[in-house]
Amino acid sequence: MGWRRDRQQPRTGPRVIVVGAGFAGLAAVAELARTDAQVMLVDRNVYSTFQPLLYQVATAGLNPGDIAYPVRSFTRRRGIRFRLGEVTDVDTRARRIRLADGGEYDYDYLVLATGVTAAYYGVTGAAEHTMGLYTRRDAISLRDHIMAWLERLDVDGPGRDINFTVVGGGATGVELAGALAELRSTALAAAFPEIDGRNVHIRLVEQLPVLLAPFHPALQRYAYRQLVRRGVEVRLSAQIREVTPDQVLLADGEDLPSDITVWAAGVSAPPAIGQWGLPQGRGGRGRVGPDLAVAGLPGVFAAGDIAVADGQPVPQLAPAAIQGGRHAARQIRRLIAGRPTAGFRYRDKGIMATIGRRSAVVQLPASIRVRGTLAWLSWVGLHVVQLLGNRNRLSTLLNLAYRYVSWGHGAGMIVGDDPAAIEAAGPLQLTGAAPDRR
Amino acid sequence: MGWRRDRQQPRTGPRVIVVGAGFAGLAAVAELARTDAQVMLVDRNVYSTFQPLLYQVATAGLNPGDIAYPVRSFTRRRGIRFRLGEVTDVDTRARRIRLADGGEYDYDYLVLATGVTAAYYGVTGAAEHTMGLYTRRDAISLRDHIMAWLERLDVDGPGRDINFTVVGGGATGVELAGALAELRSTALAAAFPEIDGRNVHIRLVEQLPVLLAPFHPALQRYAYRQLVRRGVEVRLSAQIREVTPDQVLLADGEDLPSDITVWAAGVSAPPAIGQWGLPQGRGGRGRVGPDLAVAGLPGVFAAGDIAVADGQPVPQLAPAAIQGGRHAARQIRRLIAGRPTAGFRYRDKGIMATIGRRSAVVQLPASIRVRGTLAWLSWVGLHVVQLLGNRNRLSTLLNLAYRYVSWGHGAGMIVGDDPAAIEAAGPLQLTGAAPDRR
Repeated sequence: MGWRRDRQQPRTGPRVIVVGAGFAGLAAVAELARTDAQVMLVDRNVYSTFQPLLYQVATAGLNPGDIAYPVRSFTRRRGIRFRLGEVTDVDTRARRIRLADGGEYDYDYLVLATGVTAAYYGVTGAAEHTMGLYTRRDAISLRDHIMAWLERLDVDGPGRDINFTVVGGGATGVELAGALAELRSTALAAAFPEIDGRNVHIRLVEQLPVLLAPFHPALQRYAYRQLVRRGVEVRLSAQIREVTPDQVLLADGEDLPSDITVWAAGVSAPPAIGQWGLPQGRGGRGRVGPDLAVAGLPGVFAAGDIAVADGQPVPQLAPAAIQGGRHAARQIRRLIAGRPTAGFRYRDKGIMATIGRRSAVVQLPASIRVRGTLAWLSWVGLHVVQLLGNRNRLSTLLNLAYRYVSWGHGAGMIVGDDPAAIEAAGPLQLTGAAPDRR
Repeated sequence: MGWRRDRQQPRTGPRVIVVGAGFAGLAAVAELARTDAQVMLVDRNVYSTFQPLLYQVATAGLNPGDIAYPVRSFTRRRGIRFRLGEVTDVDTRARRIRLADGGEYDYDYLVLATGVTAAYYGVTGAAEHTMGLYTRRDAISLRDHIMAWLERLDVDGPGRDINFTVVGGGATGVELAGALAELRSTALAAAFPEIDGRNVHIRLVEQLPVLLAPFHPALQRYAYRQLVRRGVEVRLSAQIREVTPDQVLLADGEDLPSDITVWAAGVSAPPAIGQWGLPQGRGGRGRVGPDLAVAGLPGVFAAGDIAVADGQPVPQLAPAAIQGGRHAARQIRRLIAGRPTAGFRYRDKGIMATIGRRSAVVQLPASIRVRGTLAWLSWVGLHVVQLLGNRNRLSTLLNLAYRYVSWGHGAGMIVGDDPAAIEAAGPLQLTGAAPDRR
């Protein structure tokens, strides 16, 4: 049901549906496209988002377009079908998915790679009063909120403070806090000469005693020193009790003022997973067998952040998602060929996080550790190379160069796509008038 | 009232407020920055929009960021103040402006360069059921509506039509219709292989018997032939009686189906002009004397599209706006120096319009006329050179190259910034399900 012949490249093989156009989903599609299978990629957006650089968009370093790639350019070249839509139901008995718009599609094989969403661990007010950084729209909204606040400071005049709080000391939290610090130390002076950087406070709250838990202690300490040197107030071993519209309340009783609170403290699978009847593991993610197949659901595989494999822990990183998506697709090929599936083994490509210009940490297998300028350069190179599409690469290089070399602030600073942002920054007519009348 | 010393560059001269960061406003500011005047630029956006290329954004050829430039980069370099805000009231007696957020600022001299908005000439339904192309957000919204409709066609499958109607055969209308035709003939096949271009209908409705009225008849005929050759249905001498959500009703009784109707038929001044007590001329625009000063309102000048000068007709073009803004600023300098003002004389730089790749018309003074590839190349060169900011230039060249050389569709195709677009394209669950069930 639901399938239409593609006018371009008629395929006659089994019907494979891949849900999610992230790293795992695209890797699976690329692999499956080489077979005779009828492949359909489903995503709720027409673009694929390069999540590792979302924080650059949020801090006005990159264009939203730089980190997004049109999915159709990807599927078209491979002669497979793309379907815009949100999966609302997976009938694993009838082997059929249903979309929010009513579309229904039968599958012989299904690869679930929808990615994850924020986990608030039951912290009161976290869901309501924090912003996330998981989607392109999240990043655009955060950027507009930040810029609207800076405009407000500019209007209100000297003496007014703004407080940023980044919750979570993982790679996302560290990179965002570092980028905010650079926004304050450089772009701020350039774009808002009337704002004193000392009125802009950036705090990073982590419940563990260290930053970047997966990294070697030496790199953890380096990241900590770098953030502190850049004027980020780092709170380690800090439990958050509650989040309010303008405060972050810590378990030890301290209340941190916070105008913009970003939640980067953890992820969990979308609730739908449970409804679809998938066995759930840590963080509600779909539990899969060693071959990434979902136990008890014939033909269903899960890959990327949404999947947690029995036995081995797979980090939630782009390389792991790419490897997982490719592996799931290969197992489907094996099943189609009547061969047994093989187990997935994650090949560690290393981990990296950047604090700011000429400051990053890289940890490669065989305990090779790099930090500082070299690490930063390899970070830039790797991320730009990984970006899908030449135009994105060029445009990203262009904007990164502007950010890190000339400190000009081009299109990244172009805001106003989130009408709610200005309102969120508070009623200007109240705060804006007073100093103007001085 | 309202003025605060700029920490960077204390100025002590008369207070000059420039309202509007378009071509005229920026030209005025650039001129005034060279004086000792305390200059404040006021705009409702933090960016200046390069309007001549809005239609490229609307048709996914350029990024929204490519045609926008951060105003603060402009004002900061010149050591003058930028104020984000919308002017709600001009008290010409007290020489004071008031902003929507309550901020109030006294001025000794005022330059009004707010630009214009659409004129609907009382056509029923025009304001409600057509989209404009005057602001960056207009362009983003139009782009997202177009893309959402194409997604809908893709979901619904063969046999479904989409109808675009461009109202107005001036430069904006011709360029938009031409760009839509190219979107259909090139990017469409690339991004939506399942959509048959014959299901995409593009109509241009003009009430005059010719396109591009200000151009020489030979160029008018060329533009007409080019559009027709590209599959645009051009309706000349066509009066519009009414616009409905899905139709454009002509005075001769014919009803044109229209899913997306773009209004590019004319402009008028924002209604506020009248409330501010400015004498109004054609299209409700502010009537100014030969020196661009507003008669009877001491210290008030108007420039750009918003102003209509007594005596000479000034075209509503970027060069005219730049010249007018600069002239107004120079007259203020003269008044500050105690000298009399001089009359404004528009220096014709010529006019141009592009129909599509390697097809444009250029009409220079001394009746020099160019068309075709050479005209198109000069159009590209001129518009890219005129773009503010190197980053914008590079990024724009990059994207134009992609559009016209490789026909790749990069960030321009990245949509989803207007959540209303998908809904506007109609309920997918109704139209989408049926063919999917085939």
